[in-house]
Amino acid sequence: MESTQLRLARRPVAEPDETTFETTTATLPALEDGQVLLAVRYLSLDPYMRGRLSTAKSYAAPVEIGQVMVGGTVGEVVESRYDGLQPGDLVLSYSGWQSADVVDGAAVRRLDPDAGPPSTALGVLGMPGFTAYAGLLEIGRPQPGETVAVAAATGPVGSAVGQIARIKGARAIGIAGGPAKVRALTEDFGFDVALDHRAPDFAEQLARATPDGVDVYFENVGGHVFEAMLPQLNKHARIPVCGLVAGYNASSAPAGPDRLPGFMAAVLTRSLVVRGFIQDEFTHSHGRDFVRDMGEWVRSGQVRYREDVVDGLENAPAAFAGMLRGTNFGKLVVRVS
Amino acid sequence: MESTQLRLARRPVAEPDETTFETTTATLPALEDGQVLLAVRYLSLDPYMRGRLSTAKSYAAPVEIGQVMVGGTVGEVVESRYDGLQPGDLVLSYSGWQSADVVDGAAVRRLDPDAGPPSTALGVLGMPGFTAYAGLLEIGRPQPGETVAVAAATGPVGSAVGQIARIKGARAIGIAGGPAKVRALTEDFGFDVALDHRAPDFAEQLARATPDGVDVYFENVGGHVFEAMLPQLNKHARIPVCGLVAGYNASSAPAGPDRLPGFMAAVLTRSLVVRGFIQDEFTHSHGRDFVRDMGEWVRSGQVRYREDVVDGLENAPAAFAGMLRGTNFGKLVVRVS
Repeated sequence: MESTQLRLARRPVAEPDETTFETTTATLPALEDGQVLLAVRYLSLDPYMRGRLSTAKSYAAPVEIGQVMVGGTVGEVVESRYDGLQPGDLVLSYSGWQSADVVDGAAVRRLDPDAGPPSTALGVLGMPGFTAYAGLLEIGRPQPGETVAVAAATGPVGSAVGQIARIKGARAIGIAGGPAKVRALTEDFGFDVALDHRAPDFAEQLARATPDGVDVYFENVGGHVFEAMLPQLNKHARIPVCGLVAGYNASSAPAGPDRLPGFMAAVLTRSLVVRGFIQDEFTHSHGRDFVRDMGEWVRSGQVRYREDVVDGLENAPAAFAGMLRGTNFGKLVVRVS
Repeated sequence: MESTQLRLARRPVAEPDETTFETTTATLPALEDGQVLLAVRYLSLDPYMRGRLSTAKSYAAPVEIGQVMVGGTVGEVVESRYDGLQPGDLVLSYSGWQSADVVDGAAVRRLDPDAGPPSTALGVLGMPGFTAYAGLLEIGRPQPGETVAVAAATGPVGSAVGQIARIKGARAIGIAGGPAKVRALTEDFGFDVALDHRAPDFAEQLARATPDGVDVYFENVGGHVFEAMLPQLNKHARIPVCGLVAGYNASSAPAGPDRLPGFMAAVLTRSLVVRGFIQDEFTHSHGRDFVRDMGEWVRSGQVRYREDVVDGLENAPAAFAGMLRGTNFGKLVVRVS
């Protein structure tokens, strides 16, 4: 079987563009014992992927030039030489930006067909949902009556953060870009307050919307939202840091003044907790609770989600570049075949 | 009885100087029931006091112009109308920069005469020692074989951090300014490595001294030590932040480039924990353990301490200004009378 593959052709200096990836076709090897052949149905596009295009020190090795771009996928088993999987089974795999893959059956996880649409395994019931769940509950620890703020709040992480915060009795402030997304924050996701970070007076709006300050700022964007948030942070505020997408395309340190000393002074004088994390460190401690809780919340409608589905692997590069600019609206997935 | 008092006369813009405080004399009121008259024996000088001179948002209200400057003190009871205290008793009080004080007997803590010299209640067995103990053990959580780094390491916090780190099986890197202090780090306090932050190649020395990186950086200075430390921080490194003395006299944000985005990227990609704290939040959870553990360690010689005693309240302002420049050598206390 042949696999259409998108490989890293050139490391982007700033935004990825049409020269970043190249399309190739590979003939997959015959199955060995224990392996399965997958037709990739959905490819997840996520902000962390920008980091994989760079050689800067990070939590994972960069994708090499010429390597198939990495990514979480939902695959359908087409042929199996692994006892636990049969043709037609859907699995969660890490096949990357390609249309088919040969993998060890033991290395993939069979999806429960009753858990929800298969693509949710890449979103609300998958890595982004778990990022929100573990980061908010383990690091953010929202208490009833506290205020939780999050940006990119129509995205898969932000929307889950806001809804879980409300389930835990906190007040949720959602931030997004543009009127359609801002409207969805209150209408679809139940945020108490929705703010548009593109508004010229965004910082003032945020200050007015948080008269008692902010107790948890779930950081997934950085940039000017972070800057507006800083003065609002209460004593003992918690800042789980899972992403900084606003700066992912930056190629050098921005001009001064140097805000780092002032930030550290805020950390000190307000006893802030700032904690970077990657969700997989919490798999052992919180993975089982997540499957139970989030499954229930999604089934009961307490947690809603929105997907932005792009058709065709050939459209992945443009969709990915758009996501880094915030043009997606909901969890971005590519319907591969 | 009269009290010689140092009052805040003018808020310093940068370094405090001879115009910052003024000396006055007050006649103390007669004792009411429940009160005691204290002759102040020792006044503690600590970096946090710089924050009290400023109106910038902080964890405690600023000292008002005309108010007696605040500070921890050891006082001797001269007269008592409080059942639990008798003349001659030594107590820990917060009488500030003055020679005598009238306080509620219930608001001070009687010192155990067997616990050590009275001045240690302001140092290794007091607030600075507890800052080191609680911050290192609760936030830093050093594991055997890990590397712990601390600056101002001959000071009361830093020297305790290093020694407690070693008691817990970690490797201790001490940083100080000038050859005499650097020598004391290994000879008196048992640090594994001693570095002089004034060396032109300090950052390179630090990198060579920490080939396995740094797992806990106990932050009490900021400035160029923090900058040199950043590249050395391991994944999941912990940074308890209890002070930033290098920047306390700064009156505006330094010139660029803006290092904050790069710092947040390090927080994210290395899953750092950055946690500001004031020791008193841990009094309830760790206070009793501290009295037991630190008392034993000091008695057994496992934790040593050094004091820098200045004679005379009139010399407090110059000693305080010097401390902010790092001229003290050990815990700075003023022998008041």
